[in-house]
Amino acid sequence: MPMSDGDSVGTVYLVGSGPGDPDLLTVKAAELIEAADVVLHDKLPGPEILGQIPEGKREDVGKRAGGEWTPQEYTNRRLVELAREGKSVVRLKGGDPFVFGRGGEEAEHLAEAGVPFEVVPGVTSAIAGPAVAGIPVTHRDHASSVSFVTGHEDPTKEESAVDWDALAATGGTIVVLMGVGKLPAYTAELRDAGLGGDTPVALVERATWPGMRVATGTLDTIVDARDEAGIEPPAITVIGDVAATRDRVLAFLQNGDGQGDGHGDRGGDDA
Amino acid sequence: MPMSDGDSVGTVYLVGSGPGDPDLLTVKAAELIEAADVVLHDKLPGPEILGQIPEGKREDVGKRAGGEWTPQEYTNRRLVELAREGKSVVRLKGGDPFVFGRGGEEAEHLAEAGVPFEVVPGVTSAIAGPAVAGIPVTHRDHASSVSFVTGHEDPTKEESAVDWDALAATGGTIVVLMGVGKLPAYTAELRDAGLGGDTPVALVERATWPGMRVATGTLDTIVDARDEAGIEPPAITVIGDVAATRDRVLAFLQNGDGQGDGHGDRGGDDA
Repeated sequence: MPMSDGDSVGTVYLVGSGPGDPDLLTVKAAELIEAADVVLHDKLPGPEILGQIPEGKREDVGKRAGGEWTPQEYTNRRLVELAREGKSVVRLKGGDPFVFGRGGEEAEHLAEAGVPFEVVPGVTSAIAGPAVAGIPVTHRDHASSVSFVTGHEDPTKEESAVDWDALAATGGTIVVLMGVGKLPAYTAELRDAGLGGDTPVALVERATWPGMRVATGTLDTIVDARDEAGIEPPAITVIGDVAATRDRVLAFLQNGDGQGDGHGDRGGDDA
Repeated sequence: MPMSDGDSVGTVYLVGSGPGDPDLLTVKAAELIEAADVVLHDKLPGPEILGQIPEGKREDVGKRAGGEWTPQEYTNRRLVELAREGKSVVRLKGGDPFVFGRGGEEAEHLAEAGVPFEVVPGVTSAIAGPAVAGIPVTHRDHASSVSFVTGHEDPTKEESAVDWDALAATGGTIVVLMGVGKLPAYTAELRDAGLGGDTPVALVERATWPGMRVATGTLDTIVDARDEAGIEPPAITVIGDVAATRDRVLAFLQNGDGQGDGHGDRGGDDA
């Protein structure tokens, strides 16, 4: 994969880092990170992946000093600026760059500015989080569709754009990214929409990171389960019959609690 | 990652191959394929990835001689049999093993049989297909949710389990896997459900494979566009305002037609 030679505009690679385990980087992502002049990132790729990138070529555009979020406009400008310096730039995003990652906005900004870019898809946490916890987001017997939404709605929107009634009506699995804080609100909305209080729900915190944790329950009980386990962001919520699969397979699932390769090791599970 | 020594039951790795470009294998998938005793696969990982696996350790469980599909029960049995021989077994699936891949059923079967297994998530074609064509499945301005369904419903089901009305009502992006043949049926259902005939639609054939092709249109025109371009399975259908992003970014999207790294090369596009 060609990198710029510095005489012309560099290329920006919009790269997904996957859920956090460095082994779940794609071959291409690993090569691009290695070859990049600069890696722009926030916190979501996680400590293990970020820890492998030399500090000299990392730029954190997640939070600025003082704890405020970097405006998207800054990130957009910085990507163009670096490319125009002839740099090969990796814009590294947790999961997949085009799943609630604002990668689409960055792609449009780059195209408007005349900067060549490439999209390098990653393993999305929305699928991998449930998967490593033993939960398939689709299942021939239980779920003919799966929908992904974010629990972290844009606060500038006047009302939530997520139609929980319609999501409930699909009959499929619902996966909520960044949905720890608003769990009480949307579980209530889904019950109001007609989903049974006994619908299985699982929360997967820091999927594939060191210290991954899982809490399970139902629409009625998951808020209590979250509080008892002390589940904190980042976490994935999976709602639907598929969430019960975990109980059926856990005894033989390796790595199902993120605690290493121990066969059937349930330490730290469902605390 | 430990492999069995042959004295005990081997481990089965349910591995996603990603959309087909070998560089979009995860680091872990590439290592497991290299180290495996046997790789059970169908056609969906695609020619490039399958071509890199020595024939001696490949077993095709996709089609049998005579063109019939291998029953899922055979695959389930074969996985257990190989593991009990102490083999390290990779069950390689296109995309992600838990997205319409029947990986959930295989996981349950392995757990019932007492065979240790691990899930290795992959880059799903449902996200990567649109992405490499310049289409983000979510976008802050256009789509607060994305739903994945299969156009290839289980023929043993009496009626389609997919609720197109509910999917249309979500207001989010709809991605249909294996949906080339039934495109006329579900585009009609979505219009009946109230989606505008001018809703953008894109078809991405053999995403990231050699000879990838893209056709674009609207709910009203995509069937004609499919026929004119001669789009064939496997392909991903993406329905929603996000599908129009491709036109805004294509001139600066590298690899957007799968034809190499040529900047702005539109050869073979939207044929």
